[in-house]
Amino acid sequence: MLTVVLVAKIKPGLEQQFEAQIARLSQLVRANEPGCKLVQWGVSETPGTYVFYERFVDRAALEAHRAAPHEKELGPLLADMFDGAPTIVRFIERD
Amino acid sequence: MLTVVLVAKIKPGLEQQFEAQIARLSQLVRANEPGCKLVQWGVSETPGTYVFYERFVDRAALEAHRAAPHEKELGPLLADMFDGAPTIVRFIERD
Repeated sequence: MLTVVLVAKIKPGLEQQFEAQIARLSQLVRANEPGCKLVQWGVSETPGTYVFYERFVDRAALEAHRAAPHEKELGPLLADMFDGAPTIVRFIERD
Repeated sequence: MLTVVLVAKIKPGLEQQFEAQIARLSQLVRANEPGCKLVQWGVSETPGTYVFYERFVDRAALEAHRAAPHEKELGPLLADMFDGAPTIVRFIERD
């Protein structure tokens, strides 16, 4: 399983808007990407910081995700709300 | 669900030892902690960097994890192999 974890601080005041859009993206991924086995987001204990993680069956599923219309639409919209560069870690699950 | 993601760089040369111990910890968590619904580790695309994540049903399950004998034994042993401070994010899953 190829997993992506993203940790991002959101610009103050945009939290509700961010939550609405990331919830929408999560639903679209679940409905349209059979190669994405888990998509989950949450709010960190660090104020204003969010975590998003996705588990893909393989690299092709990750590429399909990047090319999907919902990702192309909502990805840049979410990125515009980031307060500074997010932390993104891609990793291969071993166990 | 209360989730913890840890991203740590490991001291060069200790990768195999780290992998053996984190695999052992993962097995012990799965066998002994019903409140931990997922424990997973993997190797990042950034060389020498590992990711560990755990999903707990609630805060009590996280506290039980911290107090467990296997965590008390293996936690410090793993931490000694970290090359610098790890990134640790605790978050509440929203969706």
